[in-house]
Amino acid sequence: MTLNITIVGLDALGASLGLALGTLDPKVLDVGRPQVTGWDEQRKVLENARGRLAVDVAARNITDAVRDADVVIVNVPPTQLRSTFSTIAPALKPGAIVSDTTGVKEPVLVAARELLPSTVQFVGGHPFTALGGGGPDAAKRDAFRDVIYCLVAGPDTSRQALNGMWSLVTAIGAKPYYIDPAEHDSYVAGAAHLPLLCAVALMETVGRSGGWREIQPIAGEALLGTTALTANDPAGAAEVLHANRAALRHWISTLRNTIDELDEMLDDPASLAAYTAHATEARTQWLESSPNVRPGETEVHSSAAETQNTSISGLFFGRRVARRKGH
Amino acid sequence: MTLNITIVGLDALGASLGLALGTLDPKVLDVGRPQVTGWDEQRKVLENARGRLAVDVAARNITDAVRDADVVIVNVPPTQLRSTFSTIAPALKPGAIVSDTTGVKEPVLVAARELLPSTVQFVGGHPFTALGGGGPDAAKRDAFRDVIYCLVAGPDTSRQALNGMWSLVTAIGAKPYYIDPAEHDSYVAGAAHLPLLCAVALMETVGRSGGWREIQPIAGEALLGTTALTANDPAGAAEVLHANRAALRHWISTLRNTIDELDEMLDDPASLAAYTAHATEARTQWLESSPNVRPGETEVHSSAAETQNTSISGLFFGRRVARRKGH
Repeated sequence: MTLNITIVGLDALGASLGLALGTLDPKVLDVGRPQVTGWDEQRKVLENARGRLAVDVAARNITDAVRDADVVIVNVPPTQLRSTFSTIAPALKPGAIVSDTTGVKEPVLVAARELLPSTVQFVGGHPFTALGGGGPDAAKRDAFRDVIYCLVAGPDTSRQALNGMWSLVTAIGAKPYYIDPAEHDSYVAGAAHLPLLCAVALMETVGRSGGWREIQPIAGEALLGTTALTANDPAGAAEVLHANRAALRHWISTLRNTIDELDEMLDDPASLAAYTAHATEARTQWLESSPNVRPGETEVHSSAAETQNTSISGLFFGRRVARRKGH
Repeated sequence: MTLNITIVGLDALGASLGLALGTLDPKVLDVGRPQVTGWDEQRKVLENARGRLAVDVAARNITDAVRDADVVIVNVPPTQLRSTFSTIAPALKPGAIVSDTTGVKEPVLVAARELLPSTVQFVGGHPFTALGGGGPDAAKRDAFRDVIYCLVAGPDTSRQALNGMWSLVTAIGAKPYYIDPAEHDSYVAGAAHLPLLCAVALMETVGRSGGWREIQPIAGEALLGTTALTANDPAGAAEVLHANRAALRHWISTLRNTIDELDEMLDDPASLAAYTAHATEARTQWLESSPNVRPGETEVHSSAAETQNTSISGLFFGRRVARRKGH
């Protein structure tokens, strides 16, 4: 019994997943080292990933890639998720687990419910790696070490499927974190999408102003740093803001109130100083807290998963045996 | 005839000014090398600046420091400007030029008009150095090289006084830039104070939210970079936001409109993408434009001031001679 894992989309994140899963110590999972099949619609990327041993097998097409997979990790941009789900749906084998890696989870759960067959289990995933994009060249085997890896379940997701993803995520050294999809999207909106929206709003407010030509030579680090999130990938920025708009709008509403409060306080130096002091304190406390600690944890535990023998065969193979027997 | 320049406040900026002025090639100004007197209310800072030869003379008190000065550069925090003006006012000699280095100019012009004697000339100054704060240890002789140095005049400031400051600013290698004080404050508000307000608003919006504990472990570079301006000196942040509140409020109003536009566009991916693309483009063009180029300039000219003999004696000494003759 070999566990077949397929990764669709072999950018730095997908290739890192392949490297991490494909080079697992055979003792970590009771099914031994998984076999990793890769697919990417860009032939060169696929060949590059195979050349770097990020995948064991480079599939000939996406249907071949997923046909025998016990686990399919769909690692494509948010805008391609629905079409990818539609493409793979007819080829998925019953009992397979399908997961993804995108940063907004509620729309993905909706897409999974609409487009994937009810014979498979969907578990949304969102790893908070420090990978900055790029292709298989930028892949790192230890990209998941102590990284929080959110897992979200839909109403129909089985506990077995969740446990299966938990085991794999733990095996590659990440810290699985079950979270409600709405909470996930709200937290990510506050942590990442509201800062992005602020950066865009600030850049446009100043950059479209009548004084912009005169401001440019005197503007420096302050404007540069605060608008840095607009530097790259404006299309991706628009996509993610759109994808998470429901959660983001709650934050925008709070941001408006905060700006109004600050506006009023501009006349009152003492209140303003208390306000700026609180901001500094909140940021400092955050930075001093341990990174990658899940809420409720108090310390970073270096994952000992690789030296443990995690029983996973029952999750992936026992279920189907039982099914075969039962039906 | 020696030109006596006094610097009040010897932090990195004040000490850099002292170094730059006190080590001028004697041929640069037709009055030769200026004599630099320094004062700082912190005895250790004053001694440190003297020890580093940032000033020729460490004054015994602030009255002694300014009594014989042809030029007094008041380099104190914005909140200490008015009290410093009041303290030095009775000791200033007629015909002296008084300048400052703070980042908001309209309130300083008001303070100068109210508190300085009409026998002196006030020329506001704001050098855009890359000095990051600190004491005389952080002083750099070339801190003003090709740096834009804004000069603002009040309604009663003489052309001679403006020319005098222009000569000194040019002599230390900076690029003097005459600017209307209201325009200056508006541009600085857009370039620096609106980004600061955004950073505070964002940090408080997220940091005071109910989900903050859960957000902290998943928040990373996005929130960190966009709120970096809140990291240090919350008291200074409150001061500068308060000091420039008039100009800042115009920008806040525009920012509100921009956020409203973005909010509406969240439903419309194409418009949103055009918007984020414009922000990226504006920032890129700004970064590609030459830094420290004053509006109207097309290139950075390395200042050749140090090899020129700038006639300045008439500005500082001719005037008083003429006055003595005339009165």
